[in-house]
Amino acid sequence: MPVKLLLKFGLSSPVKVSSLKPKVIHGIFFSLFQKNKEVGELLHSPSLKPFTLFFPAYFRKPEEEVTSFTLELNLLNNELFPEVARVLFFEKELEVSVNGVKAELRSLKPVLVETYEGMLKGSSPKRDIVLDFLTPTSFRKKDADLVLPEPYLVFRNLLRRWNAFSPIKIPPRELISFVKENLFVSGCWIKTKKVEIMNEAKITGFMGRVYFYAFKEEPEALKALNALCRFSEFSGVGRKTTMGFGKVRWERENESFEE
Amino acid sequence: MPVKLLLKFGLSSPVKVSSLKPKVIHGIFFSLFQKNKEVGELLHSPSLKPFTLFFPAYFRKPEEEVTSFTLELNLLNNELFPEVARVLFFEKELEVSVNGVKAELRSLKPVLVETYEGMLKGSSPKRDIVLDFLTPTSFRKKDADLVLPEPYLVFRNLLRRWNAFSPIKIPPRELISFVKENLFVSGCWIKTKKVEIMNEAKITGFMGRVYFYAFKEEPEALKALNALCRFSEFSGVGRKTTMGFGKVRWERENESFEE
Repeated sequence: MPVKLLLKFGLSSPVKVSSLKPKVIHGIFFSLFQKNKEVGELLHSPSLKPFTLFFPAYFRKPEEEVTSFTLELNLLNNELFPEVARVLFFEKELEVSVNGVKAELRSLKPVLVETYEGMLKGSSPKRDIVLDFLTPTSFRKKDADLVLPEPYLVFRNLLRRWNAFSPIKIPPRELISFVKENLFVSGCWIKTKKVEIMNEAKITGFMGRVYFYAFKEEPEALKALNALCRFSEFSGVGRKTTMGFGKVRWERENESFEE
Repeated sequence: MPVKLLLKFGLSSPVKVSSLKPKVIHGIFFSLFQKNKEVGELLHSPSLKPFTLFFPAYFRKPEEEVTSFTLELNLLNNELFPEVARVLFFEKELEVSVNGVKAELRSLKPVLVETYEGMLKGSSPKRDIVLDFLTPTSFRKKDADLVLPEPYLVFRNLLRRWNAFSPIKIPPRELISFVKENLFVSGCWIKTKKVEIMNEAKITGFMGRVYFYAFKEEPEALKALNALCRFSEFSGVGRKTTMGFGKVRWERENESFEE
């Protein structure tokens, strides 16, 4: 059961947003669980991470100073929410430090909850799919970041995550071959951006709007693709989604690309 | 020997730019050779066309009316220039009609001439390559337009044209495998656009700037890629380059993508 939560932190003194780099935010989040090893281990899965994190301010106003900030946390598997909620709602003294500044978890609000069953059943077999990539998105190939929204890369990534965390699986081979043969980018407006994760380390990814179109009417495959889009609002797409990259918004009232 | 020529036409009465759709311009150009079947046949090669055409006004000011217009004509093979020049420079009464309006070829100016030998020998083994796609560019796959600047699609297309028209060939297999393994998009700023070719027929393509980067230092391959970029300013890239699509500008003083 994917759950989207907003975590609000207060700071003991002002901090520049630009110092809250993705890796710092990632560290803050983990230090919430330092006294709860089991939960920490659940989050630290060896392969695909069962959560994503997003710190909007870093991508919008790096030059500003803040005395509080909000994190978006998405939990992707069914087991995680009760465990994380137990710690975050009921543990006392959830104080962490940000470069020496004390940060205190002030509030926690679930803003979106869906079930895998519901996402799949409620999905329509639409052939036009529109995704907005709100933060830099990329895929890894050897030492390179792939920075084009190739349908195959986008949906294979979503599918892997879905099948890792959902009790209802989507047959991967059929869907991937449908995507490879029938799903195309019909339009896009994208630009790439380089973002500093930590000190010298940078990631390049594309941001912007992408229109996909399926050339073939195949209801089962199309329903699965639309369910993956809904899921993408929790999971994000591509690299480093535990640090705010690959954040996606799905246009439910989707339009087709026509200029 | 690729040659870029500018053809200036005068019109007997004003014509709206939007009525000079790519297919109309293509027709005007061919009607220049209606009395010279041999030249017409040379241009009408069965597979890859040995020329490209570009009508800048259509992509810039479709709403305006004009009484004259300029066409850019690129001839790609060694044999074509003398033949085309003979007709265009020396034939009399090169009058053609544009939707019933008389168009007269008023002047003809070669603006760029290169040899295939010169492009290849003069090429540097640069690893950063920057291309500006000035008009919609796409590649055909079954019924779909592929509208992402995948390195493999861009350079395979250029290579096919080069080898079709150049007396010096570039070994295709080696170069394509170099591109597939080592050439990546390191940055881009693109948007897609739909353009009407004629009546209802439309083409979608991407426009904008694309940065390519080669992860491997391999001088021969890199020299060939840079030569192809120089050639691209004559040949264009992708579909319908005989109608103004896929027009490319190569940034010779190339920068690497860094933001």
